[in-house]
Amino acid sequence: MKSEIVAVGSEMLTPFRQDTNSLYLTEKLNEIGVTVAFKTVVGDRRKDLVRVIQTALERADIVILMGGLGPTEDDLTREAVADALSLTLRRDGALVAALHARAAAWRISMPQNNLKQADVLEGAVVLANQNGSAPGQWLDMVYSGYRKLVMLLPGPPHECRPLFDNECLPRLGKIIPERHIARRTLRAAMLPESQADKLLAPIYSTYADVETTILAHAGDIQLLLICGKPTMEAARQRVDELAGKLEEALGDWIYSSQGESLEQIVLYYLGLRQATLAVAESCTGGLIAQRITSVAGASRSFVGGTVVYSDELKTAFAGVPAELIARHGAVSEEVAAALANGIRLQTGASVGMGVTGIAGPTGGTESKPVGLVYVGVSDAQKTEVMSRTFRGDRQRVREYAAQYALDLVRHRLM
Amino acid sequence: MKSEIVAVGSEMLTPFRQDTNSLYLTEKLNEIGVTVAFKTVVGDRRKDLVRVIQTALERADIVILMGGLGPTEDDLTREAVADALSLTLRRDGALVAALHARAAAWRISMPQNNLKQADVLEGAVVLANQNGSAPGQWLDMVYSGYRKLVMLLPGPPHECRPLFDNECLPRLGKIIPERHIARRTLRAAMLPESQADKLLAPIYSTYADVETTILAHAGDIQLLLICGKPTMEAARQRVDELAGKLEEALGDWIYSSQGESLEQIVLYYLGLRQATLAVAESCTGGLIAQRITSVAGASRSFVGGTVVYSDELKTAFAGVPAELIARHGAVSEEVAAALANGIRLQTGASVGMGVTGIAGPTGGTESKPVGLVYVGVSDAQKTEVMSRTFRGDRQRVREYAAQYALDLVRHRLM
Repeated sequence: MKSEIVAVGSEMLTPFRQDTNSLYLTEKLNEIGVTVAFKTVVGDRRKDLVRVIQTALERADIVILMGGLGPTEDDLTREAVADALSLTLRRDGALVAALHARAAAWRISMPQNNLKQADVLEGAVVLANQNGSAPGQWLDMVYSGYRKLVMLLPGPPHECRPLFDNECLPRLGKIIPERHIARRTLRAAMLPESQADKLLAPIYSTYADVETTILAHAGDIQLLLICGKPTMEAARQRVDELAGKLEEALGDWIYSSQGESLEQIVLYYLGLRQATLAVAESCTGGLIAQRITSVAGASRSFVGGTVVYSDELKTAFAGVPAELIARHGAVSEEVAAALANGIRLQTGASVGMGVTGIAGPTGGTESKPVGLVYVGVSDAQKTEVMSRTFRGDRQRVREYAAQYALDLVRHRLM
Repeated sequence: MKSEIVAVGSEMLTPFRQDTNSLYLTEKLNEIGVTVAFKTVVGDRRKDLVRVIQTALERADIVILMGGLGPTEDDLTREAVADALSLTLRRDGALVAALHARAAAWRISMPQNNLKQADVLEGAVVLANQNGSAPGQWLDMVYSGYRKLVMLLPGPPHECRPLFDNECLPRLGKIIPERHIARRTLRAAMLPESQADKLLAPIYSTYADVETTILAHAGDIQLLLICGKPTMEAARQRVDELAGKLEEALGDWIYSSQGESLEQIVLYYLGLRQATLAVAESCTGGLIAQRITSVAGASRSFVGGTVVYSDELKTAFAGVPAELIARHGAVSEEVAAALANGIRLQTGASVGMGVTGIAGPTGGTESKPVGLVYVGVSDAQKTEVMSRTFRGDRQRVREYAAQYALDLVRHRLM
């Protein structure tokens, strides 16, 4: 079955706001085997809206309208659907009473306009909205000789999404043949994007029944595997089989076989080894600490770190000898090693990490260009330094450097 | 004039990818007085695409198609436009030669398929693409008795956007009456979102010719003012007049009158006062240091900081007496003050900031709930602590806390 998602609201035709509900609905629709064939954004003009609804009914079996159900004059979705389908709107007594009760509970007076939200399309089922005053509506009807499903949902995400989950999905489930969906997310670090598809396409393309999506960002690659089958066992078996082959092909690049983030995995390994981590960051400026501490419970394995932007702090907080910096420069293999080892000793953590590099846009030289990053990882046994040169702007270099550094710690702990 | 932006590509009908080019194009179109009335996303099915193009031509004067110009079988935009408008496609000799030259320069063999990119619609102007192999196309024609402009642009943002700027905007400029656009961005910190509009709407609503947009995120509010007039002087005068009134209404909440970020402003004030800053972060875990160091040149005023997640590091790196932590708890006014003062003394910075709080989701108590944050700011004169309780999840609490802390430093430096 083909669906169209229509986002209603002039604010989504500005440069500043984007419909994101449709991504959520798409995921849920795909899971039950419904394709999204068209997405449309239309403003709050009744004429435009009527036309968009008619176009959608002509090309899709399921039409989901989001937004335009509120109490203001700009909220015209109900009226436009009535126009488009030549249906009458009837003011629902129970909904009027509920609106009055709601206003009383909030101790606010109710403007006459609000009652619009009690208008129900002829033949529509009212869908209760737990999180707002405008209910949704569900129409199961015949248009130009074909069965069509039309859903009217409120626009705010915290109203739209639960209402769709609670009221629309179960109804769709009764109409669409049941499928069970298995999904897995594999994640890989520092695998070049250009290599990923070359390496993986020959494998996943033989699994036509498993939808494989590759998402890449700053040294992080996510492989999303989704399979729908009549039974969950059959779906899961296909996904797991393909996941196994992909994991084998990617070897150490894979850090997560269930979608966990790299910082979660690093914390997991630290816990497993009863180890603790401390970091001394220069060019990443707190990005690594911030990623690690974004995980709830990070404090069990992460003692903390330092952002040693000045040379003096490299000495004061990570014990890097001033003459080492003078001799080799702050961005050097030697200083990365000293940062890693020093922060470990100063904090008593079992693993220390030191990052120094040139994030840019200035500060590069011929021998040490913008993007050059040294990462030291130190434990009681040894201190090792690796280096890479990343291309791109300041933000990109910093993001790649943080990813690279976390991945090196993962390798040390594996 | 009304326009429709059509994003072509099945990947944009998945839950994972969204068209963002349209936001960029909308901004540029609005600037020259063109409204975006519809946005559509359609997959790589020729029949669907033809229909979408026809619908767009019926309801808009300007139709901008993005994507589907590449060399693969799925790239069908040229063919679909030809179908929709009953135009022929002609293979352009000069473009074929350019494709061969490009392949030779990259030392790659050229598959036959690639030549599709040299197909030009009857009557179209070829738009040079500096950043990719598929050129854009521009059609100025009559459809059902009305003049229509149709643009075919490549999908990748780094191709689409410069091509639109360099090739389409100048052509549109010759057709659409010239307008000059003035714009200003004001930014305010920690102004409650619910208050912003209540306070500002009575002011900006009297400037109907200045488009005012309020964007809010985690304690940061942006006011975007845009005005188009026949002369730049007239446009700028209206924007500046409104900006002046808004600034007056917002007083100290305003931190930036030209769109600079809060971290940029803090660095600006540090430079002005010839002061330096060091931070000791607990619950924000590096978020503040990361924001400051995201600004190029931050090292001139930011010496660095510490992420003192463990109590031991609070003592080791910021000199917080262990018995102070034992007596008052790590999340306390006293520890925030000691962190701020301690990090200042340990680093020799002129201003020290200390942040401690409970980011959640666990760790809250009745007297110290999740979301409670203390921020200390210390300089040679005094050490002050402020506290707030933020609602929301771990990420939201951390983001608000970082914003709040940076804003307190701004106030100290003002």
